[in-house]
Amino acid sequence: MNFSSKHLENAVASFSSLPGVGRKSALRLALHLLQQPQEYTQEFVETLATMRLEVQECDTCFNLSDSNTCTICANPQRKRNLICVVENVRQVMAIEETGHYHGLYHVLGGVISPIDGIGPQNLNLEGLISRVEQAQETPEIILAISPTIEGETTNLYISKQLEPYKPVISTIARGVSFGNDLEYADELTLSRSISARLPYATQHNY
Amino acid sequence: MNFSSKHLENAVASFSSLPGVGRKSALRLALHLLQQPQEYTQEFVETLATMRLEVQECDTCFNLSDSNTCTICANPQRKRNLICVVENVRQVMAIEETGHYHGLYHVLGGVISPIDGIGPQNLNLEGLISRVEQAQETPEIILAISPTIEGETTNLYISKQLEPYKPVISTIARGVSFGNDLEYADELTLSRSISARLPYATQHNY
Repeated sequence: MNFSSKHLENAVASFSSLPGVGRKSALRLALHLLQQPQEYTQEFVETLATMRLEVQECDTCFNLSDSNTCTICANPQRKRNLICVVENVRQVMAIEETGHYHGLYHVLGGVISPIDGIGPQNLNLEGLISRVEQAQETPEIILAISPTIEGETTNLYISKQLEPYKPVISTIARGVSFGNDLEYADELTLSRSISARLPYATQHNY
Repeated sequence: MNFSSKHLENAVASFSSLPGVGRKSALRLALHLLQQPQEYTQEFVETLATMRLEVQECDTCFNLSDSNTCTICANPQRKRNLICVVENVRQVMAIEETGHYHGLYHVLGGVISPIDGIGPQNLNLEGLISRVEQAQETPEIILAISPTIEGETTNLYISKQLEPYKPVISTIARGVSFGNDLEYADELTLSRSISARLPYATQHNY
């Protein structure tokens, strides 16, 4: 691209350093800022800077939080002996969105993936172990990690690590998604959904 | 979305106020900033704020510039009696990209579009007229506006306005694009490209 302004060129480079933003989109975003009043950009950059400075990880569950303890951990209504282990904060948000889970979370920050150089020491596993160790009543651990090879490896590793404390460990149900045609489900999912069949009209209440 | 952090929520709202950025992409961008070192966000916001403060329009051609006169207008190598009229700065960049145009520009800032409430008074037309009026030798005006109904209306309006000064007025060639199959060209484009046919191997040098 031929820029008539060095500052514009820098802004386009900044925008296109973001994931999923190409050079053309970056230019559109930069020109958008130029078309809006000065105050718009002012507010935009202040909001981002504040977020980067203020947002931290919850000391207990490693969820994103505005203080040392996140709103979920601090909520007395939440069942304290139910811990849902997830990869990242996006999954916490997805589960919260359902409105059907009333326990706590533990954000691992990834899954074990030797090919990407991520071992157990890179995950927030020690925190999980000490939560289970220090629990007043034996907690139930729900492993809600994506059913990939790395995810299954991580599930296995966590269950081994937690074995000495004898918690109840479950994984989220694998099966055919609502709205999906059985015909298009892969064989593994379909065979598991048959072997893990449930009594009709089963209600889960957490 | 269920946010565990108010600051994160604000940042997602800011990102999704940008054109073409949805809520999910906005969340991904905000989380990306959180994953990078503090300095990354610092530099990101400073670059954008500086751009918004420093970038201005060129006093002559209304192209984006870091000073009163843009690098194109200030370049003594450029032919001063050739003015290419375009809608916006993206089109200046597109033409500059070709490397085949060595004249000056005039950025209108839009096209006449009564349906969007844009009349001639909203465009940078006075500047164009005074450039033609004050030119030392009769300039050639190339109308490089998108061939839409609004674009053609704008072309007609500009040519009427410039008539008293008797400049040479041309429009960019309309025709079948390189690499396109004739079969798929629309009838208007195809019929014009036949009536405006050129001697084989014609070279245009500006």
